[in-house]
Amino acid sequence: MNPKRGPDPNDQKMNPQGEARETHPSHETKLRVRYAETDQWGAVYHSNFFIWFEVGRVELLRSLGLPYKEMEQQDDSHTVVVEVRCSYEKPARYDDIIRIRTWVAESKEKTLRFAYEVFHDETGALLARGETLHVICDGQGRPKPLPAKYRARIPITAASG
Amino acid sequence: MNPKRGPDPNDQKMNPQGEARETHPSHETKLRVRYAETDQWGAVYHSNFFIWFEVGRVELLRSLGLPYKEMEQQDDSHTVVVEVRCSYEKPARYDDIIRIRTWVAESKEKTLRFAYEVFHDETGALLARGETLHVICDGQGRPKPLPAKYRARIPITAASG
Amino acid sequence: MNPKRGPDPNDQKMNPQGEARETHPSHETKLRVRYAETDQWGAVYHSNFFIWFEVGRVELLRSLGLPYKEMEQQDDSHTVVVEVRCSYEKPARYDDIIRIRTWVAESKEKTLRFAYEVFHDETGALLARGETLHVICDGQGRPKPLPAKYRARIPITAASG
Amino acid sequence: MNPKRGPDPNDQKMNPQGEARETHPSHETKLRVRYAETDQWGAVYHSNFFIWFEVGRVELLRSLGLPYKEMEQQDDSHTVVVEVRCSYEKPARYDDIIRIRTWVAESKEKTLRFAYEVFHDETGALLARGETLHVICDGQGRPKPLPAKYRARIPITAASG
Repeated sequence: MNPKRGPDPNDQKMNPQGEARETHPSHETKLRVRYAETDQWGAVYHSNFFIWFEVGRVELLRSLGLPYKEMEQQDDSHTVVVEVRCSYEKPARYDDIIRIRTWVAESKEKTLRFAYEVFHDETGALLARGETLHVICDGQGRPKPLPAKYRARIPITAASG
Repeated sequence: MNPKRGPDPNDQKMNPQGEARETHPSHETKLRVRYAETDQWGAVYHSNFFIWFEVGRVELLRSLGLPYKEMEQQDDSHTVVVEVRCSYEKPARYDDIIRIRTWVAESKEKTLRFAYEVFHDETGALLARGETLHVICDGQGRPKPLPAKYRARIPITAASG
Repeated sequence: MNPKRGPDPNDQKMNPQGEARETHPSHETKLRVRYAETDQWGAVYHSNFFIWFEVGRVELLRSLGLPYKEMEQQDDSHTVVVEVRCSYEKPARYDDIIRIRTWVAESKEKTLRFAYEVFHDETGALLARGETLHVICDGQGRPKPLPAKYRARIPITAASG
Repeated sequence: MNPKRGPDPNDQKMNPQGEARETHPSHETKLRVRYAETDQWGAVYHSNFFIWFEVGRVELLRSLGLPYKEMEQQDDSHTVVVEVRCSYEKPARYDDIIRIRTWVAESKEKTLRFAYEVFHDETGALLARGETLHVICDGQGRPKPLPAKYRARIPITAASG
């Protein structure tokens, strides 16, 4: 398995109901857990993983030459979140270095589905896996096709959506 | 349909992969959207819905006479999050009053699944629906059966889990 | 001392460098501490008090008939934060009911200074006190005088600022 | 002025009421603004700067060979926050690289005062400056002297506190 090309396809079933097949190369980024992200149980509060997914997604887009800031400002294209899921395997702890692997799991005319795996960087232990589904919208929230310049880097992988 | 008893069973399919059948009475609680919860898109950042789910879950437990604080402190029982999902229908806006309907969707020996619907209180519009699955754990993170005193209020609805 | 009119003037020195004199009636609002607001030390993470100050400020304005949402949308007047401070007396704990007392400590042509006291509602213990200074700005961030309709409810208390 | 030794002493007055004299070398760390940190005004919500201060403080301690995680776990020494302040000069925007300069402004037997300056990394513009005062406490919240091993790296700069 090539760690830069997403996880093992045999290991892709995020949960019994869904799949997160790899259809594009994955990207990895790291961050360090902040004290503010922990809760009194002594681990990272679960909703913070979705903020980490945001970091992974934005860095994946940047690695493709598609800074999300420009996508919003220059192309009036916003990736509005319509569905998210995450399953947690092990707790993330304060000060740990976290590695987030992100890839495009599905790409339709007006939607993008990203998949994520979160690892404890030092041990390589899988902490969580998740998905987020986005509709491309203009500034008024109306769905629109992903502009051609982005589509060139993120080819369509599934029928219109 | 009795609004205090959870949503219409015919309207329960959260997404094509899952179901959130009502198996216990639902509880409703309200909160007002904070400025801090918005993002530059002009609506509530999506991960905050999971914090609102926490509010709904805790108030449901309180309404059953089971304050979560005591569950942790007196009974060493923590509802560790192992899986979450949310689908978003409409944006939540600053200063809106939000109504969260919460119910136990599934109850096994060592797990609880909560389901949620988030409404714009004034218009009644559905903003989001979601689920969270929790494993009952002791202070060291070891799974344990939900103590009898809680089980009496939350009867088991599915085979051991 | 009238609890609805702000704290005892003899008890006003927030810290050796500042004063938070009462110049307008105070307003009180309550909220319950969320699990997400705690950290692994077992109490509320300190920056969350500024979010609670926001809640107190917005509810004070609402009680004066000045919803902040309308202030932004209808009058293009934003209370941009330029200075904040907080001193912490005791930790706030999960599930506690918190009472926030808020008042306008200073009002100039283009600035408003709010002061806050945070109490544990059940015991009345003071948990924290703070201040926030705001410049009234239009949508482009340019300072402007507070519109007359707001000024009528929040009279100027200090020389132009 | 040596950028690695803290800001110009002539430029130290954080606000009219306070001073943040440099008494130890400063440390710089960078981070990128997350979408989740913005609000509907279109800039970073003000309380998030205190989370960035945490990042700066922890990285300063790490650079001194004093990981805060070990300070808590091995030496039962927690830097409990008792006073904070921040003044904001310019807004921080989504996706900006932020540079945080942190130094120990005051060190007494049982307290540490950290000072911070936040810069827009690309332009060098000062965005904010702030301070946090901490009391060293054990796990039960009782004040205690900073252990010798930390004191060796952070010499006392002011009379007992």
